[in-house]
Amino acid sequence: MSEPAIVLGVNQYGKAEVRVVKVTRDTPRHEIDDLNVTSQLRGDFAAAHLEGDNAHVVATDTQKNTIFAFARDGIGSPEAFLLRLADHFTGSFDWVTGGRWEAERYAWQRIVAQGAEHDHAFVRSGQEVRTAVVVADGDERHVIAGLKDLTVLKTTASGFEGYPKDRYTTLPETRDRILATDVAARWRYATVGVDYDALYASVRALLLEAFAERYSAALQATLFDMGRRVLEEHPEIAEIRFSMPNNHHFVVDLSPFGLDNPNEVFYAADRPYGLIEASVEREGVPSPAAAWAGIAGFC
Amino acid sequence: MSEPAIVLGVNQYGKAEVRVVKVTRDTPRHEIDDLNVTSQLRGDFAAAHLEGDNAHVVATDTQKNTIFAFARDGIGSPEAFLLRLADHFTGSFDWVTGGRWEAERYAWQRIVAQGAEHDHAFVRSGQEVRTAVVVADGDERHVIAGLKDLTVLKTTASGFEGYPKDRYTTLPETRDRILATDVAARWRYATVGVDYDALYASVRALLLEAFAERYSAALQATLFDMGRRVLEEHPEIAEIRFSMPNNHHFVVDLSPFGLDNPNEVFYAADRPYGLIEASVEREGVPSPAAAWAGIAGFC
Amino acid sequence: MSEPAIVLGVNQYGKAEVRVVKVTRDTPRHEIDDLNVTSQLRGDFAAAHLEGDNAHVVATDTQKNTIFAFARDGIGSPEAFLLRLADHFTGSFDWVTGGRWEAERYAWQRIVAQGAEHDHAFVRSGQEVRTAVVVADGDERHVIAGLKDLTVLKTTASGFEGYPKDRYTTLPETRDRILATDVAARWRYATVGVDYDALYASVRALLLEAFAERYSAALQATLFDMGRRVLEEHPEIAEIRFSMPNNHHFVVDLSPFGLDNPNEVFYAADRPYGLIEASVEREGVPSPAAAWAGIAGFC
Amino acid sequence: MSEPAIVLGVNQYGKAEVRVVKVTRDTPRHEIDDLNVTSQLRGDFAAAHLEGDNAHVVATDTQKNTIFAFARDGIGSPEAFLLRLADHFTGSFDWVTGGRWEAERYAWQRIVAQGAEHDHAFVRSGQEVRTAVVVADGDERHVIAGLKDLTVLKTTASGFEGYPKDRYTTLPETRDRILATDVAARWRYATVGVDYDALYASVRALLLEAFAERYSAALQATLFDMGRRVLEEHPEIAEIRFSMPNNHHFVVDLSPFGLDNPNEVFYAADRPYGLIEASVEREGVPSPAAAWAGIAGFC
Repeated sequence: MSEPAIVLGVNQYGKAEVRVVKVTRDTPRHEIDDLNVTSQLRGDFAAAHLEGDNAHVVATDTQKNTIFAFARDGIGSPEAFLLRLADHFTGSFDWVTGGRWEAERYAWQRIVAQGAEHDHAFVRSGQEVRTAVVVADGDERHVIAGLKDLTVLKTTASGFEGYPKDRYTTLPETRDRILATDVAARWRYATVGVDYDALYASVRALLLEAFAERYSAALQATLFDMGRRVLEEHPEIAEIRFSMPNNHHFVVDLSPFGLDNPNEVFYAADRPYGLIEASVEREGVPSPAAAWAGIAGFC
Repeated sequence: MSEPAIVLGVNQYGKAEVRVVKVTRDTPRHEIDDLNVTSQLRGDFAAAHLEGDNAHVVATDTQKNTIFAFARDGIGSPEAFLLRLADHFTGSFDWVTGGRWEAERYAWQRIVAQGAEHDHAFVRSGQEVRTAVVVADGDERHVIAGLKDLTVLKTTASGFEGYPKDRYTTLPETRDRILATDVAARWRYATVGVDYDALYASVRALLLEAFAERYSAALQATLFDMGRRVLEEHPEIAEIRFSMPNNHHFVVDLSPFGLDNPNEVFYAADRPYGLIEASVEREGVPSPAAAWAGIAGFC
Repeated sequence: MSEPAIVLGVNQYGKAEVRVVKVTRDTPRHEIDDLNVTSQLRGDFAAAHLEGDNAHVVATDTQKNTIFAFARDGIGSPEAFLLRLADHFTGSFDWVTGGRWEAERYAWQRIVAQGAEHDHAFVRSGQEVRTAVVVADGDERHVIAGLKDLTVLKTTASGFEGYPKDRYTTLPETRDRILATDVAARWRYATVGVDYDALYASVRALLLEAFAERYSAALQATLFDMGRRVLEEHPEIAEIRFSMPNNHHFVVDLSPFGLDNPNEVFYAADRPYGLIEASVEREGVPSPAAAWAGIAGFC
Repeated sequence: MSEPAIVLGVNQYGKAEVRVVKVTRDTPRHEIDDLNVTSQLRGDFAAAHLEGDNAHVVATDTQKNTIFAFARDGIGSPEAFLLRLADHFTGSFDWVTGGRWEAERYAWQRIVAQGAEHDHAFVRSGQEVRTAVVVADGDERHVIAGLKDLTVLKTTASGFEGYPKDRYTTLPETRDRILATDVAARWRYATVGVDYDALYASVRALLLEAFAERYSAALQATLFDMGRRVLEEHPEIAEIRFSMPNNHHFVVDLSPFGLDNPNEVFYAADRPYGLIEASVEREGVPSPAAAWAGIAGFC
């Protein structure tokens, strides 16, 4: 019996991290779109891998050029921009049957000078990074919005109790601790063509509110609250996934120095950290695996 | 008709990036194992998310303690260490039906002093980081070895020609360019219990050799060569996946300064970069999706 | 003639990056101070270096403990906290004749929930990091406040013309370009005991305003404007120094695609970048070298 | 009495982090030089800052071009390359009276294929980064070689005892601990024109040897040993400075799990860390402050 042949499996390729900045200057009050775009094509690229035949390989340099050229007409929401790219590449090359387009968007605020928002000077907001992914599979389109690096902390109203104890358990129970995390969330839209910018602002606000408001029995419970609130508010959203570290803040033992420490002085640790990942969904609504493939911590 | 209920979907949690260093000092010639271990449990954790009931939540602190305690008996290969953790957690708690354990391993070389390798002084090797993933799903075990950040470069014997040209294509063809990448590869073993350390060393050598030896018609062709050589040599390996940037080195135009530049002076760019991802497999051998979920760029 | 002896030169040591978080919870409306503190002692440590005699080496672990213990009484402004540490160490150990204490401070904003600022839930502001340095030299104290990573950009009102042209010059002149930088500034107070927090807020606002308001003939001119405005406004400040990259945004040539580009689509480059460093001072007021030593890019 | 005028103080500017790669391909056995070069000019730039007059501002773009053009003739040692740049800029523009040129150099090893070193395929060595600084002040030249990120660790032959105990001291004494650091060292040559590459290799070997060989009473003592050995061996070197973290490895308390831990299982901490900085010099040989200005942790 002969060995099975060695073959090409799943594959994709493209240009990553194209840093495109679009200034809209139709009026003296300029607008700015600041994106980091990645384009990856899927389709029939076997000859390039197996025979060194590049006839199907749309150059990654060409993908980059296309991103810049498409920005000339304006960017708008990152989701809409990625959908344009997806349609272009799948529509222009027969053998490109799908792909994955991803963007990070960096927010800028107007500088306040002499009490007024300036027309063309900005300061980068520095909070969370907005993320967007579009996956094309033939005519199908999956749109996943998201954010990352939204660092939040509550100084109380958080505890951890009632967990199983085994031979390796030393953690004491508590009903009063700091809870801190960097929210990374991705939500999949049930349909295309929604108001991506308005929904983003609303989801962001709901996530913050849910984090703040309820007593946290564990980061898991807080995570589910956050997701539930988003799905309750927005029927356009089919599901939402989270990947959140538990950024430990340890109470420092000051007793050797003759001092008490009623949860006032903490040491903020770097590593290790807890890591909590979960999806919040609608019962009976299937989650397409293809939409989530390739998002670390979310698939 | 009522709205579908909001439910918990896929989820996992644990402790990430436990930096454990094990010194074996049975003889004056010490050995060192330096790992970064992440433990994530899967199973029935619905009550924690939905009701704030932590009765099933094996504390991430307990997972950390377990990693340190298990290291007391020695670590050995990262794959074997992660398998021990997987068996422990799935065997100790009924509701833990699986999980994912991951490690990075940092290599150290002995310092040479007075012409001899020192017994207990080391310098970190600094090249690639070895990676390992074990996924447990009930009694099933998937073992994926790998490496990342193996930065390689060839100064010639690389080109890119014959690609399609469209309205957005400006890249000139070439038969002589620098090819540079940071190899990230992950290979799945067909069985458990192989000699993980010996196989790691062999795969690493094969990857370097394949990168070096053949003319590269594109990074895709080089990638497939690298994977094919590994699968041809090692029947224990079921498949191998790559995620490799094309780290562009652009020839600098020196003609404005009255100088030629016959591929001698290059500008090493940071962003954007090409990104090539593919799997090399054995025909007819299915690739279990569960094994690859969660590895960014590889699923 | 014999060789000169090999001796110890300038030296300091301590504990770096102590991540201390202080929660003030006297009322339900909690306050948070989040600092990264480095303590370095100077004095007579020759025996430790030359003879392995640690009798003078206040353990870096002790320095860390002291930072946490002092936080128990509250932190206040980073400058005031560092001054307390300086007085403690130089006052407690005869052979500690000075030192250098440094802090980064991370700002948090209250989460807005149900339209109101929350009492104990926060989101990290994510813009600039506030910095503080206190140098003690005997009884002398130098206090240097600052900020870094304040990323700003103006979409117009910036140019670069009239520079010398030589054999290696290819840059075209322009009167309309993006100007972008990450402001890092350090200012030295002429006296101790000022209102550090109020001055910080004022300087930050002045820097942004100066960046925004005037046409920039070069980043050098903008830098000087920023410094001048701060010194004009605040006699308490003796001098201010800047280290600012010129984060290049290159106009993309879209003409190959049949498109114009009237300064609308830019490529944001990572490296290389311009780097502009300068001090703005008061004539005749000497700048103490000891205050600035050790601040990269500012000495 | 009027306020003192606001004036320009010390300043410099230039292009930072020019990533130049030079391939020497005169024979089939190619050589590679991989550098990150920063060029900063000093001189009379007051008009640019105060009046927006750029007549003296050699564009940072021109400085970048010059680096690439000079690489056409070969790079050689980074120190020699920087000296060429220093002579060019101070010799070409009257008002440029000095400056500072800095480089990082990344090492590459030949890939071994079929048992032989390959002619044109390389793997990045990944250990320490070589550093070089040239400071020009009129006709004077200071040359400071160095390295950073040389990560070393000894598993024993290190302790810390005999230190002062105060109210805040909790650290226990030990004669057996892990000592780990990332060596950053900078050494100043007494003269120009030495064999920079040979000296670099020798200093690197001496540093490793000194780290390995002697019992360490504290990182301070080890640091001084390392410096002394370099100065004893190399009269060409006037002084050497170190900035070294104490990368703490804490013995994990395994007693709650019924296990001993005779210095075998450690937790490698990220922050805080000790930080030890000192200069080792020759008695009576003054150290020029201008040479060291701007090197964080070394001035």
